[in-house]
Amino acid sequence: MKKFEEKTIHSERLYEGKVINLKVDDVSLPNGKQSKRELIEHPGAVAIIAVTDEQKIVMVEQYRKALERSLVEIPAGKLEPGEAPETTAMRELEEETGYSAEKLEKLISFSTSPGFADEVVHLFLAVGLHKAVNGAVTDDDEFVELMEVTIADAEEMIRSERIYDAKTAFAVQWVKNYLSDKN
Amino acid sequence: MKKFEEKTIHSERLYEGKVINLKVDDVSLPNGKQSKRELIEHPGAVAIIAVTDEQKIVMVEQYRKALERSLVEIPAGKLEPGEAPETTAMRELEEETGYSAEKLEKLISFSTSPGFADEVVHLFLAVGLHKAVNGAVTDDDEFVELMEVTIADAEEMIRSERIYDAKTAFAVQWVKNYLSDKN
Repeated sequence: MKKFEEKTIHSERLYEGKVINLKVDDVSLPNGKQSKRELIEHPGAVAIIAVTDEQKIVMVEQYRKALERSLVEIPAGKLEPGEAPETTAMRELEEETGYSAEKLEKLISFSTSPGFADEVVHLFLAVGLHKAVNGAVTDDDEFVELMEVTIADAEEMIRSERIYDAKTAFAVQWVKNYLSDKN
Repeated sequence: MKKFEEKTIHSERLYEGKVINLKVDDVSLPNGKQSKRELIEHPGAVAIIAVTDEQKIVMVEQYRKALERSLVEIPAGKLEPGEAPETTAMRELEEETGYSAEKLEKLISFSTSPGFADEVVHLFLAVGLHKAVNGAVTDDDEFVELMEVTIADAEEMIRSERIYDAKTAFAVQWVKNYLSDKN
């Protein structure tokens, strides 16, 4: 998986932040020419497709400063250093939604923005949900509103762009197939 | 769609690049506290689900420096300033694959990394494909290998992680539903 490899000639990290770093690499291309690549380093994340016994998807609404609007998304959170994605997924599900899951199953991992970022999202299915705590217990600077959404409502939210991110669009399609296979 | 709005107190652009910018915003949270947001500005992109008359998906393999590996993806490209996404989609399809499409239909737009980037991908369906030029005509620093993939092969590539990005994972699922509704 190194086809058309771009070899690093020089790499400079221009910013080290709390969540992301920025580096600019000079690379040599397969034709021998050189180019620059502007790259974001991100710790990676988990996202959880949590389906209730009533076949609703657990979602959270939150403000996304990058887009200057709030989005309805499946629960997600950044990986902590050294933490297994399964552990992060269980923790984030409980923190953001108050639910714990009897069964957590890894579905897929994917890069979100391969053109400029190394962020990978590990996607899990959580079923057998029960309320672990009374409501969500989020971080100090995190404000989320919990909701449980039918497939039909989720599809309407995609049309109206209240749902507007790749992982949640993928998740809604995935659950629709999952439930129609199951029923 | 301003629920839990985070108001900007101060914004500083720390890097202006060829493709992305980095800014750090000080924000005031709904509880009156303050926090920092590290944000990437990106011009946005299009991606094209191009389905051949033989019901194969047109894909390209290319090296992604951010991940230090090559990925198999649906064709995609950045928006040029002032260009309508439909125009970019037609152009990128022809440049990356040599195909032009009789019919181009907008499917969905989604944010790729709402936690830190404003990048939005506009996804199109292209059908009625015919070879416009003999092979791909890519930019000087772009190296891609063209392939046409059945749904079964695409699903196997997702399992083996040769396909490893959100827009292409979404696309494969979408085409599977599209073809099964059609047939």
